[in-house]
Amino acid sequence: MHNHHPYILSKIREQRPLILNITNDVTMDFIANGLLSLGASPIMSKAVSELEELIAIANAVVINIGTLDDDFINLSERACEVANRLDKPIVFDPVGAGASQYRTKACLNLLERFQIAVIRGNASEIMALSQDYRNTKGVDSSLSTTDAAQYGQAMSSQHDAVIAISGQTDIVVQGSRIERLERGSPMMPKVTGSGCLLTSVIAAFNAVHDDAFQASYDAIFYYGACGEAAAERASGPGTFKSLFIDALSRDVEE
Amino acid sequence: MHNHHPYILSKIREQRPLILNITNDVTMDFIANGLLSLGASPIMSKAVSELEELIAIANAVVINIGTLDDDFINLSERACEVANRLDKPIVFDPVGAGASQYRTKACLNLLERFQIAVIRGNASEIMALSQDYRNTKGVDSSLSTTDAAQYGQAMSSQHDAVIAISGQTDIVVQGSRIERLERGSPMMPKVTGSGCLLTSVIAAFNAVHDDAFQASYDAIFYYGACGEAAAERASGPGTFKSLFIDALSRDVEE
Amino acid sequence: MHNHHPYILSKIREQRPLILNITNDVTMDFIANGLLSLGASPIMSKAVSELEELIAIANAVVINIGTLDDDFINLSERACEVANRLDKPIVFDPVGAGASQYRTKACLNLLERFQIAVIRGNASEIMALSQDYRNTKGVDSSLSTTDAAQYGQAMSSQHDAVIAISGQTDIVVQGSRIERLERGSPMMPKVTGSGCLLTSVIAAFNAVHDDAFQASYDAIFYYGACGEAAAERASGPGTFKSLFIDALSRDVEE
Repeated sequence: MHNHHPYILSKIREQRPLILNITNDVTMDFIANGLLSLGASPIMSKAVSELEELIAIANAVVINIGTLDDDFINLSERACEVANRLDKPIVFDPVGAGASQYRTKACLNLLERFQIAVIRGNASEIMALSQDYRNTKGVDSSLSTTDAAQYGQAMSSQHDAVIAISGQTDIVVQGSRIERLERGSPMMPKVTGSGCLLTSVIAAFNAVHDDAFQASYDAIFYYGACGEAAAERASGPGTFKSLFIDALSRDVEE
Repeated sequence: MHNHHPYILSKIREQRPLILNITNDVTMDFIANGLLSLGASPIMSKAVSELEELIAIANAVVINIGTLDDDFINLSERACEVANRLDKPIVFDPVGAGASQYRTKACLNLLERFQIAVIRGNASEIMALSQDYRNTKGVDSSLSTTDAAQYGQAMSSQHDAVIAISGQTDIVVQGSRIERLERGSPMMPKVTGSGCLLTSVIAAFNAVHDDAFQASYDAIFYYGACGEAAAERASGPGTFKSLFIDALSRDVEE
Repeated sequence: MHNHHPYILSKIREQRPLILNITNDVTMDFIANGLLSLGASPIMSKAVSELEELIAIANAVVINIGTLDDDFINLSERACEVANRLDKPIVFDPVGAGASQYRTKACLNLLERFQIAVIRGNASEIMALSQDYRNTKGVDSSLSTTDAAQYGQAMSSQHDAVIAISGQTDIVVQGSRIERLERGSPMMPKVTGSGCLLTSVIAAFNAVHDDAFQASYDAIFYYGACGEAAAERASGPGTFKSLFIDALSRDVEE
């Protein structure tokens, strides 16, 4: 098994990286609380007018298209342009890619025009953005973990990005590097925004560590361990959510 | 007492109906978590561009006017038009109807132009939309449960819709059919969005069952029972909220 | 030590003041739940079209610029104009002032044009709006509590407003009146919106009591005591948040 490096988590707590979240309205509160509990500093923005200044002080930028509309597309394009210019890592969550043409196109547009450090989604979202996959199967096909890994590798090479595919087995891919993780709890998909928050946590790990593959792997490993710790004490998805936020503030043993 | 049918709840858990929520920003997170815990699949959208595709795959559509503005009015009109055309049930929550002319007019406009399956609100919201009531009393009059039921029946006939009036006594009306329920907990109105989430839960029940009266009755019955279960363990409205989400994921005995 | 007056809290519970929150999307849910638990009635709005009617029935108005954009600036200007005309107290939260020129300018514009009853922020936000401070130091300088109090007094006189500066030591200033408080818990800054909710709680206290200095002091005192009570039972920031909402509904002893 690949080793995770607890020192990346330690660096988050020392450096308190500022994570700018260009994100959807549904899960902003959960993302902000999760990042605070983790030890990072969240900021959210919806104004093109302040992107330049905020990205200048941010250590990483999250683009999450949860509640997409035309204003959001414009905002995210501008944020990517500034982040690339100022060399801040972008972590991208293509929420609902494949569910509507509108979403799929908006995602592909960002991937083509900008350098994204990490793309994190579930298998159907990632496959909707895979050129090979769209050419051969269409977005409705069912998909084995092995298939997902294979398409993820092609996407990683095409976009020079780490691809993180979430599911019962999590997969992290960067070119020929690939790791699988089996952590977490079945409670996690019962909490809205658990994917969105993972994306922002990946951004926090990337904000303090240069190797995007290792940083993403460690973020997913730690996130899953927190889910397991919370599930032990939870009586359902509501109490799980609070306990999961608690867990993010602690050092979780493997 | 009217019987509730536990099999509708079972069907939600089997079929995991997709509920599209065109809803306000304040309570999106609570609605999404409540629907996930219940066993349904929530999606939220703010983009006219993707309504057609999302409604095509949705099993019911919720319109909730909590944080109303002109963009939202346009979005909700388009969503109702598509939902009616594709024959997906619409459940409508006229949040704050009567509190401003702007809200009241926006609601009446939707009711006149589209076929709504269920309208759920508190007595003052429902009365603000009742033609008979506005003609005779004005929205500030106090109102007995008996009165509310009577106006609700007239509204039900006029709009060919189930009317669900929430309060200490809940009333469900469809033409000459009427039921009253006395379930729930005084904690529920202390949680913001407890009405909004009920509306979305009603939509989930309607998504898997054709009789809108029975589906709405069962949703309200189950929701109230979950409130009672949560109140037993809560130390205030904050812990109640988490425990209520927990309860929605379980089979609650009467 | 200054005395706090438990009767202001009692008046909130008797009168259930209506607090209109023109506020950011991230923390709306937390603000609404906190105000409900406290005993006040929250409303949120984003529509210029209904401001006149909503402010007419509101007892206080909160302006919180958390997720600022041009629409929000327009909305907040209109809300301030109506609130001043109808003589409803405005409580202002300059979230992120100093972090971007866009935010700083938007805040200064409101302060110049409208009569604000209370301005609440952390030291760096308040200093970013202090004319004296900007003239001499620039927003990046570190700041002692003594300095903050001094600049706060000048700002209070300039804008005829109560200035509440949040931090490990909270400071309340009105002209020559000044009080310091040392209440609360280190968990509080780990919960997103804990500052925003305090601003809305200050508005609730101001809605039922005319002396803005005393009302603001009592709100901060009570809020801190609730934080201490919640921290005793919390296992981290997630459970703290629920327990803090619980605490706001109770009478907390000093």
